[in-house]
Amino acid sequence: MSLDPARLQPMSNAIRALSMDAVQAANSGHPGMPMGMADVATVLWSNYLKFDPHAPDWADRDRFVLSAGHGSMLIYSLLHLSGYAAPTMDDIRNFRQLGSPCAGHPENFLLPGVECTTGPLGQGLAMAVGMAMAERHLNAVFGDDLVNHRTWVIAGDGCLMEGINHEAIGLAGHLGLGRMNVLWDDNNITIDGGTDLSTSEDIKARYRATGWHVVSCDGHDFADIARALDEAVADGRPSLVACKTVIGKGAPNKQGTSATHGAPLGPDEIAAAREELGWDYEPFEVPTDILADWHATAERGASAHGAWAGRLATDLDRKAKFENHMMGVADLASPALEAYIHGLAAEPKKVATRKASEMALEPLTAALPQLIGGSADLTGSNNTKTSSTTPLTAQDYAGRYVYYGIREFGMAAAMNGMALHGGVVPYGGTFLIFSDYCRNAIRLSALQQTQAIYVMTHDSIGLGEDGPTHQPVEQVMSLRLIPNLNVYRPCDTIETAECWALALSTPETPSVLCLSRQGLPQLRGDGDGDWSALSNRSGMGAYRLVSANADRKVVLIATGSEVALACEVAQALEGHGIGADVVSMPCAELFEAQSDDYRADVLPAGALKVSIEAGSTLGWERYTGTDGINIGLDRFGASAPAGDLFAKFGFTAEAIVPQILNKLNA
Amino acid sequence: MSLDPARLQPMSNAIRALSMDAVQAANSGHPGMPMGMADVATVLWSNYLKFDPHAPDWADRDRFVLSAGHGSMLIYSLLHLSGYAAPTMDDIRNFRQLGSPCAGHPENFLLPGVECTTGPLGQGLAMAVGMAMAERHLNAVFGDDLVNHRTWVIAGDGCLMEGINHEAIGLAGHLGLGRMNVLWDDNNITIDGGTDLSTSEDIKARYRATGWHVVSCDGHDFADIARALDEAVADGRPSLVACKTVIGKGAPNKQGTSATHGAPLGPDEIAAAREELGWDYEPFEVPTDILADWHATAERGASAHGAWAGRLATDLDRKAKFENHMMGVADLASPALEAYIHGLAAEPKKVATRKASEMALEPLTAALPQLIGGSADLTGSNNTKTSSTTPLTAQDYAGRYVYYGIREFGMAAAMNGMALHGGVVPYGGTFLIFSDYCRNAIRLSALQQTQAIYVMTHDSIGLGEDGPTHQPVEQVMSLRLIPNLNVYRPCDTIETAECWALALSTPETPSVLCLSRQGLPQLRGDGDGDWSALSNRSGMGAYRLVSANADRKVVLIATGSEVALACEVAQALEGHGIGADVVSMPCAELFEAQSDDYRADVLPAGALKVSIEAGSTLGWERYTGTDGINIGLDRFGASAPAGDLFAKFGFTAEAIVPQILNKLNA
Repeated sequence: MSLDPARLQPMSNAIRALSMDAVQAANSGHPGMPMGMADVATVLWSNYLKFDPHAPDWADRDRFVLSAGHGSMLIYSLLHLSGYAAPTMDDIRNFRQLGSPCAGHPENFLLPGVECTTGPLGQGLAMAVGMAMAERHLNAVFGDDLVNHRTWVIAGDGCLMEGINHEAIGLAGHLGLGRMNVLWDDNNITIDGGTDLSTSEDIKARYRATGWHVVSCDGHDFADIARALDEAVADGRPSLVACKTVIGKGAPNKQGTSATHGAPLGPDEIAAAREELGWDYEPFEVPTDILADWHATAERGASAHGAWAGRLATDLDRKAKFENHMMGVADLASPALEAYIHGLAAEPKKVATRKASEMALEPLTAALPQLIGGSADLTGSNNTKTSSTTPLTAQDYAGRYVYYGIREFGMAAAMNGMALHGGVVPYGGTFLIFSDYCRNAIRLSALQQTQAIYVMTHDSIGLGEDGPTHQPVEQVMSLRLIPNLNVYRPCDTIETAECWALALSTPETPSVLCLSRQGLPQLRGDGDGDWSALSNRSGMGAYRLVSANADRKVVLIATGSEVALACEVAQALEGHGIGADVVSMPCAELFEAQSDDYRADVLPAGALKVSIEAGSTLGWERYTGTDGINIGLDRFGASAPAGDLFAKFGFTAEAIVPQILNKLNA
Repeated sequence: MSLDPARLQPMSNAIRALSMDAVQAANSGHPGMPMGMADVATVLWSNYLKFDPHAPDWADRDRFVLSAGHGSMLIYSLLHLSGYAAPTMDDIRNFRQLGSPCAGHPENFLLPGVECTTGPLGQGLAMAVGMAMAERHLNAVFGDDLVNHRTWVIAGDGCLMEGINHEAIGLAGHLGLGRMNVLWDDNNITIDGGTDLSTSEDIKARYRATGWHVVSCDGHDFADIARALDEAVADGRPSLVACKTVIGKGAPNKQGTSATHGAPLGPDEIAAAREELGWDYEPFEVPTDILADWHATAERGASAHGAWAGRLATDLDRKAKFENHMMGVADLASPALEAYIHGLAAEPKKVATRKASEMALEPLTAALPQLIGGSADLTGSNNTKTSSTTPLTAQDYAGRYVYYGIREFGMAAAMNGMALHGGVVPYGGTFLIFSDYCRNAIRLSALQQTQAIYVMTHDSIGLGEDGPTHQPVEQVMSLRLIPNLNVYRPCDTIETAECWALALSTPETPSVLCLSRQGLPQLRGDGDGDWSALSNRSGMGAYRLVSANADRKVVLIATGSEVALACEVAQALEGHGIGADVVSMPCAELFEAQSDDYRADVLPAGALKVSIEAGSTLGWERYTGTDGINIGLDRFGASAPAGDLFAKFGFTAEAIVPQILNKLNA
């Protein structure tokens, strides 16, 4: 499409009008960003972005990420105007109302065309890095004619001030992701006022220092925007396009101030803006000629999509391979593990579950090319690298192992981006304690329904000498609080393999594997090793590992490294003639999903319930009631060898059995 | 002290020997960093750092922060060698053993001279920014002759790769904290291997772009180190001193590799290092002449301390003012609020608790000059600014309000640094959902026993239209899991004031105030407004707000915005002839600390317990048992006006009362 302002200006003013009117109708929202970036977005959409509104899931589309998600009316306007089936104009009229897909912030699960959920600042940009990584990887695997697209980001000053952007651009610069372009809404305004209230940074110099190409433009001059985008496309490095804009552009009395950022303009200012923009139409009315120009922006993409489909169809074997690859791994993990599990049953192994995870990953990564692993600089500790996963580098994007560096938050967001891109199932490691550093990205995995798998090792005071800063106490329980997240804490090699199979089988639910540093005995074996029994064991979330010999009085519920301890406690109780079951609960979320009957069978009324987990007790009352006993740790840990710590904090049969006897005798 | 290598080299080799021997004895730890930075630390300690081992709490000491906390043997060596009472050589021999103050990572609560707990990378540097802010502020208030010290940081590549360092140095650059100097252990090594595995950044250029002065040196050339430190001291900007070092320097076969980073060197390599270093002494033996040289490093500081004490003594009024200021606010908050509370009792107000917080802060900030407020770019939303708190800027450090920018993690860490520095009680605001962004800094507030007060507004789906990315669902409960953290969720103006008074009364426990966006009715008043009743109300953690009229069958337990709903439910139940108490629980942690009798009185056996909180239900079973009812939200929220959301998710008397009736009739 041409860059003639006579054509483009009405198009961008349509964005402005929809944005200010929708925010006014909702009486809440953010008109400033969509109005400020309308011109840039119009140039991008009309002349650069490769998209097909009739096939929003087309694998080789460009990815567009509105990292400054509060400006959601920008993307709703773009999707509607360019001809996506949704949002409809009624959806836009109902912006921010119950049931409208036009939510306050863009939600990937509500609208095709919204590539990711944004709003938590900086994360859109960081997810885009993951998308660009997935693109280069799949390009290396399948070639230019099947995978060859760009990743575009609109980011504001907030995104660029957040720490995560440092991690994200460091990774992108290092990996040379030249097909990623960030359009920075450089408007000098944040919520509190001018950016000079809180920052004096030379952002362009910082990006250059991180291996990025930087170009600037007048964000309200169509030709100049196009010049800058041409330069960005041409450069082999990732590009920052600094678009100098006026926030709220078009609102004559408020533009350029933080007053336009996060509140409706009000009827008077909207009337003044209509005059300023020459927009002589009713709210939510877009004249047909302007709408036709917008619909025309989709023609390039539709044509490219047709050509791509033609190329895909030329080789049916490759087509099948590509489509299978893009379908994910949900049904493939269990078969890949079968032989491995049988081997474990035949020859029990006492190893740390982080090591057990590595052992399971060996056949999994061999069988499943979609798996891309990595670690935030703890490869040898997280045990995340296998013989199949060679490094993914700027020199070899076909690799499948990412050295993420000391960038937990950036890693987690990049994993989300890879999963959202499709064709990749990412797993990544760090210490469980540093789930705190990336917690909101884990939350976004859950909210966005992505299959990101977090390998979190050193999962309790069992890590020992590193001390309280590194000992997760509250992290396991606190991750369980996040909706749509499966938190696994397996007790041995077999449970670890089962949990990996389960994590790989839930394409719309992310997983956290909480794994021990220290060696753990293999508690499962023999008949248990029968792979067909999988769904009756870890897959149930919790199950009876040991049945009481004597009359059952006690049910011990434990996870991970404490399951072996629970077995010891049970044995000691049996020695006192007291029957005790041991229930292993590798995944509380899956247990919650079981039938009432199953749960009542595993945790029967009448028996004294005792939970044993080396972490917060708060939450365990769900299973033990107010009459049970919760053995846990409600304080920070300490620095000492693991054995000393378990003894100090009462995680021994000697310390636990008397508490149970006292309770039974009370 | 002179820079003669003949004097300094044995001194730095003493650090190397202690570090490698202690790690070897513990069979765990990190020798690489202390050995690599020993020369730099020796120059700093002997010629620059202002410290007095006999008065580790001297207010005008320089602050030294080992941000790369895994290299803890460096600071233990320095403290021991320079004559601090602790650690003793026996403590060092017991490095990483139970009971030794020489923990795996330095802990401020175990050793005077350890200014802050470090280990979670990047946070030491970010806390140092807060220390430097506190120094400049107190300097502006009390003058050069009482407050005039520097903040020194040793940071590694990990600290500089973490996102938080971007936020921290952005703030430091903007505020022009020229008395802060970061000594970067520039050794090109991370755990996974060479830094080139994961980063290609020009760190020096990035710091320059952020308003920092940068200087480089050979980290093993004493004169060159001193030249660089001189330049850093002379420059008015914060300085990054890039110290080019060899990790594990002195271990001839392993130095320069990641093998020295996090594991003992082994007996053979230690023997080789002894030879290489010419260190002909037994493990944990330091010859008296070298020890004497180390002890002499303290003379400058002791003398400066004496001079300072003399200046302080010249004006007794000022001395009293200074000492009172440094003592904190623990006993001052309640009196400051008395008149305000009486006013509330006389004239009830329906306002959002974020507004109620602002109202309470008005008299508090007027009375307590130690309070320094701020917000991560949400000043008008968090309601954190008062008429007493003018901006703290590079031009006016006497100000008491910090525009932290969009830097939640950096803000929280800076607050920790200010609190640790002393003389400042920091409070800072963001949306509650973004507690996720700074969660590990909140954890470090708790672990370090600092008085940081987090003002977290928009505390549930009650924030409405911004939708699920911005609606905290699991955050309140998840913060409750952190040990030594008081989480407050007040229900009205009076509880909000009480919670502020409580938060200000716990100098060793940080607080999170969870506050509503939406208006809430005032539920307390009249007799309740009697300030003397404070300790019997919110101070109890939970208390009976409404007593049943009819025979008590039900106890409704609610927090924050749901307390008013609980009152409605109680009224409806009474209409059915069912007696119902309403218990407001503004702080579960304080309730846990009450006597068994009190708790049993508030939550009596026999009654049906019903919790109502617009968030995760997991955890509420502690109070409601397995037979109770937990009204909450175990899924993500949605974008819509708050009223619609509360209705959709069942937070209405109409939805709740039938559930209670059914349960009672079951």
